[in-house]
Amino acid sequence: MVEQKATNVHWHEGSVTREHRNKLLGQKGATLWFTGLSGSGKSTVACALEAELIARGHLTYRLDGDNVRLGINKNLGFSAEDRTENIRRVGEVAKLFVDVGVIVLSSFISPYRIDRRVAREAHDKDQMPFIEVFIDCPLDEAEKRDPKGLYKKARAGQIKNFTGIDDPYEAPEHAEIHLRTDELSLEQEVAVLLDELKRRGILDAD
Amino acid sequence: MVEQKATNVHWHEGSVTREHRNKLLGQKGATLWFTGLSGSGKSTVACALEAELIARGHLTYRLDGDNVRLGINKNLGFSAEDRTENIRRVGEVAKLFVDVGVIVLSSFISPYRIDRRVAREAHDKDQMPFIEVFIDCPLDEAEKRDPKGLYKKARAGQIKNFTGIDDPYEAPEHAEIHLRTDELSLEQEVAVLLDELKRRGILDAD
Repeated sequence: MVEQKATNVHWHEGSVTREHRNKLLGQKGATLWFTGLSGSGKSTVACALEAELIARGHLTYRLDGDNVRLGINKNLGFSAEDRTENIRRVGEVAKLFVDVGVIVLSSFISPYRIDRRVAREAHDKDQMPFIEVFIDCPLDEAEKRDPKGLYKKARAGQIKNFTGIDDPYEAPEHAEIHLRTDELSLEQEVAVLLDELKRRGILDAD
Repeated sequence: MVEQKATNVHWHEGSVTREHRNKLLGQKGATLWFTGLSGSGKSTVACALEAELIARGHLTYRLDGDNVRLGINKNLGFSAEDRTENIRRVGEVAKLFVDVGVIVLSSFISPYRIDRRVAREAHDKDQMPFIEVFIDCPLDEAEKRDPKGLYKKARAGQIKNFTGIDDPYEAPEHAEIHLRTDELSLEQEVAVLLDELKRRGILDAD
């Protein structure tokens, strides 16, 4: 756990609440936490789902390993410690978005079980929906795709601490949604996610 | 400047853009960056402005020294280095909100000129509006108010590095909006801010 360093702080309760914003937006916020190997298709599924949601008038935002690392987490690398802090900060940013009322699509490898649990518990603490989505793609398939050429570099020793090669991926044991990429098409994956969002009342049923 | 540690990252260009979200929300995002001494009234003005904006149907979110320090920045204290990292992260979070289309009301003491410039330049780089609002309250007045009893503790040496007492406040030289609390009422301050948001096309003119 990260220690609370600053004292003399307390949550500032403003006159405008989450409920005001939910009413304005006509939706509630939630975090969909995509986890899986590099090349498993996390961002592809998140993008496809986002396009569907925005077409239906829902405000969404994608938090992505690549774009977050250029901003809020630009001072973090890929050591185990930095990966943990990376995921911790993303979890907290996601919570701020949920507080605004946004449906957050967070797509990070997030290989360590403990880190995902920290993000989940941070949401639970403030009664914010957290839906873990395991994009389950076999390593040999992800490595065959290798869309960014990273597995090749990792095998050649040019990248260290690469998940699946010389750093572990701890698969979720109790993900809310488990998508096997060798069984489902992209369209089917998006359909499963939409159904689940409706089932949980995050989207209105048709 | 913070060094970019992670390599092999690039901004993921999704199919849903800022423009899609702006259209959905009927507004554009912007950051109002309130700066001033502890007790100057930053949060009070931000709350009052937020209530006005939400009543007019605008999606806003307040980033606050107190609530951010309980989450994303809980591993930061009040040393000069930690204050700088605190403000850097807030600037980056604000940018993500602007990307969503939210009017961000960021209210932090943010005492160092260089730190505010880093936040401003991060916005400029991606053509995101950044409006610095200097809540200009004389130190003796802020200390007289002392709503959280912090000045008293700082004078007694129980809090170190307290802005205005044993840590400097570097007043803005070119803030877009300069509000003198000894000349304006809260209602007048909010009116000035609303006028400026209209003048800049962030809100529609009446």
